[in-house]
Amino acid sequence: MSEKLTAAVITISDKGSRGERIDTSGPRICSMLKEDGWDVVYTDMIPDEHDMIVNELVYVSDRLKVDLALTTGGTGFAPRDVTPEATMAVVERPTPGIPEAMRAASMKITNRGCLSRAAAGIRKGTLIVNLPGSEKAAKENLEAVLDPIHHGIDMLKSSGSADCGVPLADD
Amino acid sequence: MSEKLTAAVITISDKGSRGERIDTSGPRICSMLKEDGWDVVYTDMIPDEHDMIVNELVYVSDRLKVDLALTTGGTGFAPRDVTPEATMAVVERPTPGIPEAMRAASMKITNRGCLSRAAAGIRKGTLIVNLPGSEKAAKENLEAVLDPIHHGIDMLKSSGSADCGVPLADD
Amino acid sequence: MSEKLTAAVITISDKGSRGERIDTSGPRICSMLKEDGWDVVYTDMIPDEHDMIVNELVYVSDRLKVDLALTTGGTGFAPRDVTPEATMAVVERPTPGIPEAMRAASMKITNRGCLSRAAAGIRKGTLIVNLPGSEKAAKENLEAVLDPIHHGIDMLKSSGSADCGVPLADD
Repeated sequence: MSEKLTAAVITISDKGSRGERIDTSGPRICSMLKEDGWDVVYTDMIPDEHDMIVNELVYVSDRLKVDLALTTGGTGFAPRDVTPEATMAVVERPTPGIPEAMRAASMKITNRGCLSRAAAGIRKGTLIVNLPGSEKAAKENLEAVLDPIHHGIDMLKSSGSADCGVPLADD
Repeated sequence: MSEKLTAAVITISDKGSRGERIDTSGPRICSMLKEDGWDVVYTDMIPDEHDMIVNELVYVSDRLKVDLALTTGGTGFAPRDVTPEATMAVVERPTPGIPEAMRAASMKITNRGCLSRAAAGIRKGTLIVNLPGSEKAAKENLEAVLDPIHHGIDMLKSSGSADCGVPLADD
Repeated sequence: MSEKLTAAVITISDKGSRGERIDTSGPRICSMLKEDGWDVVYTDMIPDEHDMIVNELVYVSDRLKVDLALTTGGTGFAPRDVTPEATMAVVERPTPGIPEAMRAASMKITNRGCLSRAAAGIRKGTLIVNLPGSEKAAKENLEAVLDPIHHGIDMLKSSGSADCGVPLADD
């Protein structure tokens, strides 16, 4: 039996981190991951501060070496929403198809789906994906990509490149 | 009754700015905005010059402080089409879902919809969105996103971040 | 009768370039282009090395001046998949709608379509487009955009900008 994949879930919310709001999105994401067989090894809540988000993403990628880091919050148009910028600052290889697929799924539910500025990408061995702050939208977005993410992380944990063509021998 | 949202409409066209072509896209976009309740406070026509586009976008964002700046023209593959590059040079926070939604809407009409290189993003309190140069495509693209843009600008004019979770008190 | 458009097809594969795998994607792409009326003037196979990919793309764009450069391979999540990063390093004007359209077409076949990190853009007179490494996905992706690419390259070979509005005289 293979080892479980590991995940970190980071809630990014000024009011949540000041105790002025109850975070329901982070716990909901954790439940979804656990039901899907993931080991959620780290959760945290931090304010909408660019440098704190950067530090947090570097910590879970480089130190904890989680397979998947999900953020919730800070992906909108409000002045302090900076999660995508902090994410792109730490990502080495963007994975634009993941936010595209999340927004395309959202657009089937509401035309406001195009307002998510969510980003995603790979840092070392960790896939980082931004989810919206609302519990409903976070759930819908995660459902849209959780299945293919398994395959993406399998590739990421492999050695070498995703080679094309026909192998000449069993290798 | 709330104040009207303000907009600038900038036509980017070498031939238009030399008087060799009649700009029908700019006026059409203005009509659509006015019918939708916007106050169009500024219009201009400039050639396809990177630095002139940059200056114009900085002017309407930082000086005029319009809520929405729409450009039309310069989003294609022609050698002098540089509107997206000039736009990304001034944008602080990209809003990739807006061009994605515009192109997805165009693709339902013509597979050439994928050729629009339009960009969009936020600079200070202004949302900047590139529209294609053809009147028909500009109209179709704007229709695809004008409704959610209202909500995006409401968020942008709010203070703080789009917080997730449940408020502990009416705030 | 107009001259044929020219293309280069570059297979990017560690194992292929070591002779450990037979490249079926490159030849398939060449066949599709020839059937579509293109003159495939250059093919090569190189390993998943950022600088070699950069050099190759600069060579076919700046020296060979091909109209279209297609790559296959290196667009996934595997640690050595760096084709999109090398592509974005040489591209002057991104064409994000092309990978969006390819991924949207893939997503109708498999939800793993969102895992392609393919990029595309213009360098001087050449359109560069990344295709996945698997022959099946490369074929599906190319089919999704080959028709509009003709029109994009027509624009790219034109002088000036794609002007909007109504011409005042035949020009």
